[in-house]
Amino acid sequence: MVQHRDATETPLPILAIVGVGLIGGSIGLAARRAGQFSRILGIGRDPESLERARRFRCVDETSTELQFAAQADIVAFCTPVDRIAEQVLSLAPHCRPSTLLTDAGSTKSVIVDTIEASLPNHVDFVGAHPLAGSEKRGPEHARADLFDGRITVLTPAANTRSGAEERASLFWRGLGSDVRVMSPAEHDCALALTSHLPHLVAAALAGSVTDELRELTASGFRDTTRIAASDPAIWTAIFEQNADGVIAALDKFEKHLAMLRDAVASADTTTLRRLLTEAKRIRDALGNRDSSP
Amino acid sequence: MVQHRDATETPLPILAIVGVGLIGGSIGLAARRAGQFSRILGIGRDPESLERARRFRCVDETSTELQFAAQADIVAFCTPVDRIAEQVLSLAPHCRPSTLLTDAGSTKSVIVDTIEASLPNHVDFVGAHPLAGSEKRGPEHARADLFDGRITVLTPAANTRSGAEERASLFWRGLGSDVRVMSPAEHDCALALTSHLPHLVAAALAGSVTDELRELTASGFRDTTRIAASDPAIWTAIFEQNADGVIAALDKFEKHLAMLRDAVASADTTTLRRLLTEAKRIRDALGNRDSSP
Repeated sequence: MVQHRDATETPLPILAIVGVGLIGGSIGLAARRAGQFSRILGIGRDPESLERARRFRCVDETSTELQFAAQADIVAFCTPVDRIAEQVLSLAPHCRPSTLLTDAGSTKSVIVDTIEASLPNHVDFVGAHPLAGSEKRGPEHARADLFDGRITVLTPAANTRSGAEERASLFWRGLGSDVRVMSPAEHDCALALTSHLPHLVAAALAGSVTDELRELTASGFRDTTRIAASDPAIWTAIFEQNADGVIAALDKFEKHLAMLRDAVASADTTTLRRLLTEAKRIRDALGNRDSSP
Repeated sequence: MVQHRDATETPLPILAIVGVGLIGGSIGLAARRAGQFSRILGIGRDPESLERARRFRCVDETSTELQFAAQADIVAFCTPVDRIAEQVLSLAPHCRPSTLLTDAGSTKSVIVDTIEASLPNHVDFVGAHPLAGSEKRGPEHARADLFDGRITVLTPAANTRSGAEERASLFWRGLGSDVRVMSPAEHDCALALTSHLPHLVAAALAGSVTDELRELTASGFRDTTRIAASDPAIWTAIFEQNADGVIAALDKFEKHLAMLRDAVASADTTTLRRLLTEAKRIRDALGNRDSSP
């Protein structure tokens, strides 16, 4: 028996992605793979980058006008963290009722607080942070499987409607990720340690080596400093938005480094070996599955 | 016309490798590829590991007795840095005249000084450090191309015979590496920054993250801490032998980290962006060719 699509059936929703780089482009590819959207719109500032996003099938239609996203049922903001709140609040008044707005920013407290203070009541915002990415940029590096098996942290605010949180969870799980729910402050505190601190440390390491010593580096140095090649503008904004969290994480790191330093300086090989053994235990537990391509 | 091997022609030399793990095993495979040795001997403590080295064709014959290496023309010591000098001095009296001894240790001053103080005059020692490796261990991870295009630092002592230095250079170039010559002190100072410091920093980073936060790490944390999975015993010995160099490198790193910290704490985005941009320039110049497999 042939199945006919009922004319009264709810049509598939429209997805809009604001900022179609590596993350935004991968959201487009993953959403297309999931097959749950009728159209995928891409919004950005750079027409050339948008053209590439279309060519790589990350999005179906593009525009440089933010308001182009107002027709969508779900809008994902994948722009630098210092632009997300402003763009969300700029688009929200033009959105249809019950539009779900979400983001992929690496910091959450400043973004969520700013948006919650001024968001119109007819739309919902649920902050999100997919723990996936690389130092690469642009839709040409987007991958449909970027979020598979990775965690996306959702950071609902105190007054986020539970239906909105559930829709955001469905959306991010539909892209392949596992969802965890935390408060924006909890997120920023945790990610300061697991993500922002390593970036700062990698930058300090890279900055410690003069050009003359470059040829004496090997794989250890290259691995350890790889994320120092990340975009300085994007990371300046992240460090600015999560300064307190980053300073607290630095305190923890410096305490550990000082223990190692003291053990080296005093030739306390017992302590040194214990600290290195504990670090190895922690690192071994992480495995290597998420190494950058 | 058939070519006959002249009975008076010098036979191909014998290579012995003491410590047949990742580095020693790779020396065996690279030497076999070069075809300049009649036999490749492997000496080690663990019969099972030696058996694997033979099975993976890293070596032809094996023994758990150090003196087995005395028949060789070239002996490469690939044991932990705190065992090399002792083994060299233990084997040397039994070696034939003009035997070339070399090593693959990550530190050089302590090793070279200890050996130079007591080496018998009929043999030569030229310290070496091939800048290649990985956090993996064992002959099963050995690769014939491990040294290709990598640098091997040779650290002759003040009274090393020039012929010995030339032979060591030929040997390490024969394995595929480019050779640089430095004093042991210069080597230790440079490698403290480019290799030993990153290991200490990776260990401090891994140690800063509790088990509960583990699932919130992504590729940046994994890359940055990968070498924290290295063998604690081997690295305890390296830090012990190059304590002064490591502390000086830590001073430099902590200065850079403090600049970044101050910029974050004071919301000085101009300085922060400048420091991150400089770090990116340095890291971009390294490229990604040497990333761990």
